[in-house]
Amino acid sequence: MEKTIAIIASLDTKEAEVAFVKEMIEKQGCKTFIIDVGAKGSESIVPHIRAEDVARAAGREWDSIYDIPKHEMIVGLLEGIAVLMPELYAQGNFDAVLSLGGAQNTTIGVSAMKSLPVGLPKLMVSTIACGQRTFESFVDTKDITLMPSIADISGINNLTRTILSNAAAAIAGMAKHAGVPLKSGQELIVGATLMGVTNTGVAEAVKLMEKAGFQVISFHSTGVGGRAMEEFINEGTIGAVMDLSLHEITSEMFGKGFSTGANNRLTAACNAGIPQVVAPGGVDFIDFYAKELPQDLNKRKHIYHNSNIVHVKLLEQEIVRVGEIITERLNKSRGPVTVIIPLRGLRQNTSPGEALYTPEVDNALIEVLHRGLRRDIKIVDVDANINDEIFSKTAAAELLRMLEQQNME
Amino acid sequence: MEKTIAIIASLDTKEAEVAFVKEMIEKQGCKTFIIDVGAKGSESIVPHIRAEDVARAAGREWDSIYDIPKHEMIVGLLEGIAVLMPELYAQGNFDAVLSLGGAQNTTIGVSAMKSLPVGLPKLMVSTIACGQRTFESFVDTKDITLMPSIADISGINNLTRTILSNAAAAIAGMAKHAGVPLKSGQELIVGATLMGVTNTGVAEAVKLMEKAGFQVISFHSTGVGGRAMEEFINEGTIGAVMDLSLHEITSEMFGKGFSTGANNRLTAACNAGIPQVVAPGGVDFIDFYAKELPQDLNKRKHIYHNSNIVHVKLLEQEIVRVGEIITERLNKSRGPVTVIIPLRGLRQNTSPGEALYTPEVDNALIEVLHRGLRRDIKIVDVDANINDEIFSKTAAAELLRMLEQQNME
Repeated sequence: MEKTIAIIASLDTKEAEVAFVKEMIEKQGCKTFIIDVGAKGSESIVPHIRAEDVARAAGREWDSIYDIPKHEMIVGLLEGIAVLMPELYAQGNFDAVLSLGGAQNTTIGVSAMKSLPVGLPKLMVSTIACGQRTFESFVDTKDITLMPSIADISGINNLTRTILSNAAAAIAGMAKHAGVPLKSGQELIVGATLMGVTNTGVAEAVKLMEKAGFQVISFHSTGVGGRAMEEFINEGTIGAVMDLSLHEITSEMFGKGFSTGANNRLTAACNAGIPQVVAPGGVDFIDFYAKELPQDLNKRKHIYHNSNIVHVKLLEQEIVRVGEIITERLNKSRGPVTVIIPLRGLRQNTSPGEALYTPEVDNALIEVLHRGLRRDIKIVDVDANINDEIFSKTAAAELLRMLEQQNME
Repeated sequence: MEKTIAIIASLDTKEAEVAFVKEMIEKQGCKTFIIDVGAKGSESIVPHIRAEDVARAAGREWDSIYDIPKHEMIVGLLEGIAVLMPELYAQGNFDAVLSLGGAQNTTIGVSAMKSLPVGLPKLMVSTIACGQRTFESFVDTKDITLMPSIADISGINNLTRTILSNAAAAIAGMAKHAGVPLKSGQELIVGATLMGVTNTGVAEAVKLMEKAGFQVISFHSTGVGGRAMEEFINEGTIGAVMDLSLHEITSEMFGKGFSTGANNRLTAACNAGIPQVVAPGGVDFIDFYAKELPQDLNKRKHIYHNSNIVHVKLLEQEIVRVGEIITERLNKSRGPVTVIIPLRGLRQNTSPGEALYTPEVDNALIEVLHRGLRRDIKIVDVDANINDEIFSKTAAAELLRMLEQQNME
């Protein structure tokens, strides 16, 4: 069946560019569905959705958005597009989304894309996908593909023709030959969290689950992955977890560092009541950028992870607070939970003689968990490091046991 | 003709994923050309280029890279891939590049992509295109498209299948239906620099050039654009410039702020000897992130550009230094130069009564330019703001005059 590409752009300034990509996309056998997010409309292109309609989706009843202050207009369009896109998609108006523009249009374009399911093709051609900007504000936890435009997108010249041709071909290719949104299916999918310093242990547990016939998706708990996993839990795509790297909780507590960005971790699985095997992997350190090291660094054990990032061991009172957060959140769980505690280190480099070996800190955490966790939460102490084989085996065995029990009920 | 996609990946850890995208790409009628950048090779896939061959391109004669320290190996592969890719491309081995992987593979993949011409399709599927990372280190000034993988790329599960299917379809679509590398053609292309606060004046000058029949590509001089333009000059794609926004020179002098990243501006056009119309647009302020404002802010005029960025007016001694840099660089020019000086403000918000109105600072710059520029460099003082019509007209008229003169010679 013919596929349709939604094009989100400001027709008042990007009329020629939209006409160009529209023609390119149609040449490749797809249809287009045009959403105008510019204030002043266009002479030659009649959009399927006008900017006023977008704003109206957010409850703004403007006859014309021409006279609204620019800031207010952008807020209206941002709110509106996030509401409108899932509706338009559910009605079958498009199979993929392309957007192109500068700062304002990029903000609106990615807001639209974030509201749509993973797997649905999303391509943002942006003048500002370069330089010092971070991915955070564009991508969030979604599969938003970004194509830097290099130059201003103003008129069709040799450079914009080259870039926009590639963009049109890429989005049409995805819509025609791939672009199947990820769905919560019948099959149970297991989510797992890992990071470089817990990778050995978690990856081995993942392999054991796969050998037992389960599909596992692994997420890096370095500021985005944990959040992405929790969204998949909320959507029902992931039905059980091996949440073995809670490092993002430490980052949340500090509010800064390399792995910030995933707040309120552990809540989705607890709310959903799905089986959870949890371990405090990587909660014993914070990853600071080398340029923003804490002032009391001389009091702290630390190790350079690479030239940009320093891993700094927590102090006792800090890890106690982390433990309290974990306890508080897990105690709200509606489903079965097993907490596995590796007694000989929560990450790499924590064995005797290694840079982050600090048993008194780890023990402070272990005590908080033992004391605070609800009685019906099973705790398994493993006399090993998180990257040791016995840890991986215990984690997989516990989850398999829970899933079996769930099946029997 | 059948198109070929180069796939850059570490076969030791990404064998299954490479096999998957290879099959998807071939289904769409393209061939693949596999470049292994992993240390340990693969059992089932024989690459066209082995990691040892990549390292050898950088002069490293390793029989096996299995026993080399990891850091040394990565440096060898990074250097090698940048040398090897243009050679392989020139020999006709591929028409597009796809790469997939984590931190190490992403570094190598984008290094390969940076070495290839704009327009040749480039798609990086990366676990680290998310969170706090900046575009700078991935994209540079090239059209490198980035697809975040959301989860770890480890094995084929529902999520990786979805992401990698889209990636394969996008790169095949680009290779088949677009993907024409930008070339330095017969036609003269004019480069122009602008930014938000000089946009009105420069955009009008661009329109006048277009009316006169010239193709113009505009670049945002906010840290990347100016550098991209200079690369196009070096490659011979751009043959004349309206370099009317030199703000990046101020950022270079301060070494920080939002627009850092384009160093040694003005040098490419001077070396190439192409016609230049230059104006000190936007050199009178630095755009600081709100969190890193200068300590003596109370002495300085400033204005919030948005909630993240503050535009801070330079002090007199600072703009004098900027003027000296401009003078020094332009005085090395091998071709014709006209400098246009807008006497009533180098950007928005500099008219009497506005936030950045500071004639004594602007005048200090004007004096340095008048005093220091080589006698054969034409200076045109315009009694207007850079965003006034007379400025745009003067800039376009000067460049048209130079191009006419060049034609007559």
